Amino acid sequence: MSDFASQLKASHERVNGALDRFFAPLDHREPLMQAMRHGALLGGKRLRPFLVYRTGQMFGLSPDILDAPAAAIECIHAYSLIHDDLPAMDNDDLRRGQPTCHRKFGEDTAILAGDALQTLAFSILADATMPGVPAQDRLLMISALAQASGASGMCLGQAQDLAAEGHPVTLPALETIHRHKTGALIRAAVALGALAAGAPGKQLLPHLDRYAAAIGLAFQVQDDILDVVGDTATIGKRQGADQQLGKNTYPALLGLDGARAKALDLHRESLSSLEHVAALGYDTSTLAALARFVIERDK
Amino acid sequence: MSDFASQLKASHERVNGALDRFFAPLDHREPLMQAMRHGALLGGKRLRPFLVYRTGQMFGLSPDILDAPAAAIECIHAYSLIHDDLPAMDNDDLRRGQPTCHRKFGEDTAILAGDALQTLAFSILADATMPGVPAQDRLLMISALAQASGASGMCLGQAQDLAAEGHPVTLPALETIHRHKTGALIRAAVALGALAAGAPGKQLLPHLDRYAAAIGLAFQVQDDILDVVGDTATIGKRQGADQQLGKNTYPALLGLDGARAKALDLHRESLSSLEHVAALGYDTSTLAALARFVIERDK
Repeated sequence: MSDFASQLKASHERVNGALDRFFAPLDHREPLMQAMRHGALLGGKRLRPFLVYRTGQMFGLSPDILDAPAAAIECIHAYSLIHDDLPAMDNDDLRRGQPTCHRKFGEDTAILAGDALQTLAFSILADATMPGVPAQDRLLMISALAQASGASGMCLGQAQDLAAEGHPVTLPALETIHRHKTGALIRAAVALGALAAGAPGKQLLPHLDRYAAAIGLAFQVQDDILDVVGDTATIGKRQGADQQLGKNTYPALLGLDGARAKALDLHRESLSSLEHVAALGYDTSTLAALARFVIERDK
Repeated sequence: MSDFASQLKASHERVNGALDRFFAPLDHREPLMQAMRHGALLGGKRLRPFLVYRTGQMFGLSPDILDAPAAAIECIHAYSLIHDDLPAMDNDDLRRGQPTCHRKFGEDTAILAGDALQTLAFSILADATMPGVPAQDRLLMISALAQASGASGMCLGQAQDLAAEGHPVTLPALETIHRHKTGALIRAAVALGALAAGAPGKQLLPHLDRYAAAIGLAFQVQDDILDVVGDTATIGKRQGADQQLGKNTYPALLGLDGARAKALDLHRESLSSLEHVAALGYDTSTLAALARFVIERDK
């Protein structure tokens, strides 16, 4: 396993352990709780927690401080997937190679599990131990996560995506959708790691934010490419599902080669943003490796 | 109009103004935003904001400080109603005499509008101006709202309610459902007002919490009574809807007279909790008037 792959695995295991601890006080006999665990703990790349940990650790923070924001952002991501998969939305039966939450627990429980996972995210950020992080910075973290996931972030992007289904959009319109739908939360992951680090993190946040915006968009471009060239078993959902739904994708607008060139452009942009951070003596190698992973992954 | 009715009206108008200000930065052309406004701003008694304002004002706080928690808790309440009304949940066409959110905007937009209203609640508590409230107390307020609305509060209650539909439950089981489903958020309203007041509020919180728990349950008992004896035009939803769904209600378990006696018991309990607060020189008359309103209302 490459150095990067083992780092990704380590942060995956770490955030799952943290999620387990945050789930522990809830009543595990309740189907609601089982549906929440199903949505949050089965599979997934844990890209957002990885960004939280690695950004914070770049500033010298202990991962103990980063468990709360890493788990919180994964709860938001998990809730959004549960709701996106619902019959009234993307109507998906399969997610990460497993039955989607509503297929396993029923639509009503899936809606509530998504709702409660969102709540849990904010609960964690308000309550969990984060030694050395002042209350004021916690509020900034809660604010950043809320801004990224609500009516001017992720929820807006999902609404715009659904509205655009079945009729062609322009490239700028597609980018607006993805900036909201997936980009905002990836930027929030980096922001949470930086805000937990206090002054040095806040100072470098503009550069880190540009890095995150570039990899966020690159992630989506690669997702669209994999919908065309990937296979169902590897990507864990039906290959061609987006095309079938008449979704607007980068390959549909730019062709497959155009989409690949776009991903490379974004990769370069992410690296050039990291140069400002490296210039101040921080080790950006892991964030750079992640940028590469984003455009080279096959699932 | 009675003194109490005009106080209720004033806080209704005040929180609507506050919600308008918090909605203002969002893009009003987006259907998502229109659906959020529809859910949050049409009708409703604004009982929870009233409790936030009146509890805080009892401790001498200016309503300026209370606009944020009042608006935040109304956003949580509004999101829960939007999701409760969905076809996969209670499948209601009418709410507060208006078409429900999914009937007007479609199911997908309604799900997202509920999601984004929940996010907005936490965003408001993290960001809004609350002069004199320390960051640490804001975190306590965020924590209280999250605890009340998530997997051990409102969402759990809704899941338990759906699970109990169509087969009879015992009285203690029914109380557990309502303690979670509606009680937790009504207790949070009082807690938000008290926490905003700092030390004096925190000191009296146990008594205020018992008051809130009693009126929260009384509110539900009266709701069940109105489902039997109210008329569709006054209560703003189909009379008999609960009975038709095979919902467990207090009249079904205790008979109509038994349910009325239960509401009176809870009223007495709420007043006895307020006595401890009044004993320290606070004017509890408005909270007492609310307790009376809860069991005497006809809608």
